[in-house]
Amino acid sequence: MNLLLLDDDDFVADGRVIVRDRRLKHVREIHRAVVGETLRVGRIGGRVGAGRILRLGEEALELEVELADPPPPPLAVTLVFALPRPPTLRKVVEQGTAMGVKRFVAIGAKRVERSYWTSKSLRPEALRESFILGLEQGKDTVMPSLETCPRFAAFHRERWPELRAVGRPLLADAGPEFVWPSWDTSREVEERILIVGPEGGFIEPEVAAWRDGGCEVVSLGPRTLRVETAVVALLGRMMGHEVPVQGVSSRRGERR
Amino acid sequence: MNLLLLDDDDFVADGRVIVRDRRLKHVREIHRAVVGETLRVGRIGGRVGAGRILRLGEEALELEVELADPPPPPLAVTLVFALPRPPTLRKVVEQGTAMGVKRFVAIGAKRVERSYWTSKSLRPEALRESFILGLEQGKDTVMPSLETCPRFAAFHRERWPELRAVGRPLLADAGPEFVWPSWDTSREVEERILIVGPEGGFIEPEVAAWRDGGCEVVSLGPRTLRVETAVVALLGRMMGHEVPVQGVSSRRGERR
Repeated sequence: MNLLLLDDDDFVADGRVIVRDRRLKHVREIHRAVVGETLRVGRIGGRVGAGRILRLGEEALELEVELADPPPPPLAVTLVFALPRPPTLRKVVEQGTAMGVKRFVAIGAKRVERSYWTSKSLRPEALRESFILGLEQGKDTVMPSLETCPRFAAFHRERWPELRAVGRPLLADAGPEFVWPSWDTSREVEERILIVGPEGGFIEPEVAAWRDGGCEVVSLGPRTLRVETAVVALLGRMMGHEVPVQGVSSRRGERR
Repeated sequence: MNLLLLDDDDFVADGRVIVRDRRLKHVREIHRAVVGETLRVGRIGGRVGAGRILRLGEEALELEVELADPPPPPLAVTLVFALPRPPTLRKVVEQGTAMGVKRFVAIGAKRVERSYWTSKSLRPEALRESFILGLEQGKDTVMPSLETCPRFAAFHRERWPELRAVGRPLLADAGPEFVWPSWDTSREVEERILIVGPEGGFIEPEVAAWRDGGCEVVSLGPRTLRVETAVVALLGRMMGHEVPVQGVSSRRGERR
């Protein structure tokens, strides 16, 4: 936990919070913090800053907080992925959130098992837990969202036109050759849509549907990677490419 | 398991193997393969190809194999990393191997707990298991190696001069700004040495030692990532940059 995330309910007064749940346990047992010490804190959906410990007991942690800084800029990537099995879903969501993804879209495909759609990992409270873990890791406060669309054909018919308009769509496929587009780094930050298939990949007609939908195919080469590894490797290639926050360009100097 | 890895001991005749261990179980229970079917196989340290199932029972799997193709080219990266806690070590080694790393060097640092050095995960048989899982995932046959050097100062004094000569050293640090070097893509493939610190990072004098040792500092930006996430994200940025195998350049067309 690199950031103690605060909810509106934690605030007992302006600049004063009381925390009781697993965060209290973490601060006591892992951080082993003491009264007077300062922790890095952030308000969900808001700013980040410092929290000075006023009181720390078995029952509660009381902090005086000052939230002065904006959270890190989001990654300019929407992640569209074939719903993987539940443990992989948790890894993808948690790691993607830590890396700055704000919009996840889980879709169906031929190689997605139907049973995955009834998994507890897709319930709002389970997703929220993965989001929070990712935000705490990445020192971020801005909650991502996850949409689902179990039917591949319906997704392409009903949802793709809107999504397609958001940015440049890249379909990641484990082709035999490494293929990566050149970015025009002189332009303003460009939103991208990264599409990642299921274990075993999208089947041929699905790949054709993505191509017909205007996707460029990219590939990290002949090595087949686990879904969670591929997602992190692909997002890693997109870091340094963040959207401006609060009207101020926070574009990082991606030197090439 | 995207590739069934064969050991010299598995060969009962030229082009004929018998497999009995967890691989047999995997082929029966996960692949649910049947006689006559063809599996992707590879010989440790050798070529990859196809294995036709001649016999498949509770006791043994017999295959007729033809190994015609070279394994995928290795990634031109030596990974030097501060030894993490055992579960993270396994993830780093397995995912790094799947991505094509052939040389791992685990070192000590101020924030590396001493107890990690006595972990079972560092024993040769445990490392071999992580290597094999990574090779099976990445459809590779070439076994990586892992060297250890628990003392940071001794590493820099005794080992760094040799390593430094291998390639271009990049120290990954979670700086506030994204920093990534420009590669000269017109040149021949350049070996790189990627250095990743412990959770919490290298301490100031350690960073100074790396700088004095000729390292460039790179950063994925202000988000703090778990060690295994950072390693995969950083290696992801280096994919498409493989060393030639068997005298034939297999450099992938990294378009920019």
